[in-house]
Amino acid sequence: MAVYTDVTEPDLSAFLAAYDIGALSSYKGIAEGVENSNFLLRTDSGTFILTLYEKRVDPGDLPFFVGLMEHLAARGLSCPLPVATRSGATLGELAGRPAAIFTFLEGMWTRRPSADQCRAVGAAMAGMHTATRDFRMLRSNALSVAAWRPLAEACGEGADRVEPGLASEIARELDHLEGAWPAALPTGVIHADLFPDNVFFLTGELSGLIDFYFACNDILAYDLAIGLCAWCFEQDGAFNVTKGRAMIEGYRTERPLSGSEIDALPILARGAAMRFLLTRLYDWLNVPDDSFVTKKDPREYLKKLRFHRNVTSATDYGLDSQKAIA
Amino acid sequence: MAVYTDVTEPDLSAFLAAYDIGALSSYKGIAEGVENSNFLLRTDSGTFILTLYEKRVDPGDLPFFVGLMEHLAARGLSCPLPVATRSGATLGELAGRPAAIFTFLEGMWTRRPSADQCRAVGAAMAGMHTATRDFRMLRSNALSVAAWRPLAEACGEGADRVEPGLASEIARELDHLEGAWPAALPTGVIHADLFPDNVFFLTGELSGLIDFYFACNDILAYDLAIGLCAWCFEQDGAFNVTKGRAMIEGYRTERPLSGSEIDALPILARGAAMRFLLTRLYDWLNVPDDSFVTKKDPREYLKKLRFHRNVTSATDYGLDSQKAIA
Repeated sequence: MAVYTDVTEPDLSAFLAAYDIGALSSYKGIAEGVENSNFLLRTDSGTFILTLYEKRVDPGDLPFFVGLMEHLAARGLSCPLPVATRSGATLGELAGRPAAIFTFLEGMWTRRPSADQCRAVGAAMAGMHTATRDFRMLRSNALSVAAWRPLAEACGEGADRVEPGLASEIARELDHLEGAWPAALPTGVIHADLFPDNVFFLTGELSGLIDFYFACNDILAYDLAIGLCAWCFEQDGAFNVTKGRAMIEGYRTERPLSGSEIDALPILARGAAMRFLLTRLYDWLNVPDDSFVTKKDPREYLKKLRFHRNVTSATDYGLDSQKAIA
Repeated sequence: MAVYTDVTEPDLSAFLAAYDIGALSSYKGIAEGVENSNFLLRTDSGTFILTLYEKRVDPGDLPFFVGLMEHLAARGLSCPLPVATRSGATLGELAGRPAAIFTFLEGMWTRRPSADQCRAVGAAMAGMHTATRDFRMLRSNALSVAAWRPLAEACGEGADRVEPGLASEIARELDHLEGAWPAALPTGVIHADLFPDNVFFLTGELSGLIDFYFACNDILAYDLAIGLCAWCFEQDGAFNVTKGRAMIEGYRTERPLSGSEIDALPILARGAAMRFLLTRLYDWLNVPDDSFVTKKDPREYLKKLRFHRNVTSATDYGLDSQKAIA
């Protein structure tokens, strides 16, 4: 939950004067998103989201993010659409921050994902992967395998305060991941943060995806591995193979997975668990307690990492061994 | 900013089934209100606020608060109107908390009040005081003069960690306030927390009042004294007599002030400053830093208290000495 930057009504009204969306009738900070400040705006003409980009986001990346959302929306994938000013700009400045206005996406994120929802997310993710084949902007993944060792070193021995022996466990795991990370899998634009709070459902159907601020070019199947980590574990830490199978099958309805991609899922999922373990660990050790950022327990991802380390093939994620070959 | 309690979509949809407000299309936690969790709901039929009452609110007080809002709305004072279920209930339970749904009030609160806005707030406050003459429920003020000594004692010598000598300054001030607190002024239902974030404006006009969760029966002019504290000081700590005059004059357009009420304003304002000094001090010393509650600096109200201590008559608040007698 977060509103890092407040906005005055005169400043906001002046900002809105460049748009054709009517006069402001209310705005309220919303307690969602951990990187930026978000407001729900109501004007004469409808409901919108105002996002102020905070320090963690590189302004140089904003054209990629906003361009990606425009590209996806133009191809029929439901996501917030950047609203342009009368002169065509989708990025401006407000309260000293880069700022943008988006259409409001109806729907609710699910606190307790079902297998059907996992299937729908898999399909939507694959839909994004195919819809971006002709997206021409590039953004490298600042949180992929090459970034993990420096992040682990920045945590240092602090990891052992979370759990004794964790620093050396991470170091050994990184040795393995760096050596075994797949080099020749299909790449493209991935969401890279498709957690339940970034997927909306309405009347039983997936109604859209939000929060593209980690999107980047990387291995497509790595996105699916992140999805398995984010959606398919139960609260007690057990992996739910029914949900895993549903997500992978859902993905395959929109984009085929090659044998190499399926074979790589266990190592990609180990990497995904490592990525979220490390960023959570770093925040756990470095973000002050009185910050607005709600810190998430890194041990959740340590448990997931250990699970994926013991996976021998994608059949452990629920995939039928016959189908795995297909 | 606060969302203390999250709600799942199935639980919320089940709760809404008792209302005639259509099917849920979205809900988002909003970063406003420090006592309760608030969500902005959108349904087929419109926009609403869902409030979950947290521990700081006594469930026994809820019928007073909700009844007061119904009473005010029925008399044309703009405020959120409690929405009743088909069976007529305005209070229910959701996620283990007492819960209510309110109509959405358009408008924005002002971060930088103008004298005109102070005048409008004074008039709206007096309008509330007159509109509640026939409101029959009673709620005593749990934070009036009798409550301050125990609150100061609960802070103890911790006050001196905020500023050396503060504990004894508070004790001396309480001696004075308890002795000089007026006993015979007109009483009624006061808002008791009419700060800028609880007053909405739209296209230059006051569009409504919100957050009645400190409302109670007390001295009417004490509400005005709270308003002078909350609206009429500049960021540098100086009292703005133009704003003070505007607020008092605005009040008098809707309800006359007697000579006794005007004479009592300085002592009432000292009390108002003490009340907010003490609750802020208590939270400063006792709320953990990692809590969701944003702690406010108690010294802001220490400065205001010292200002009011040196006030000799209501003319120091900008009131024309001729008008003061009228």
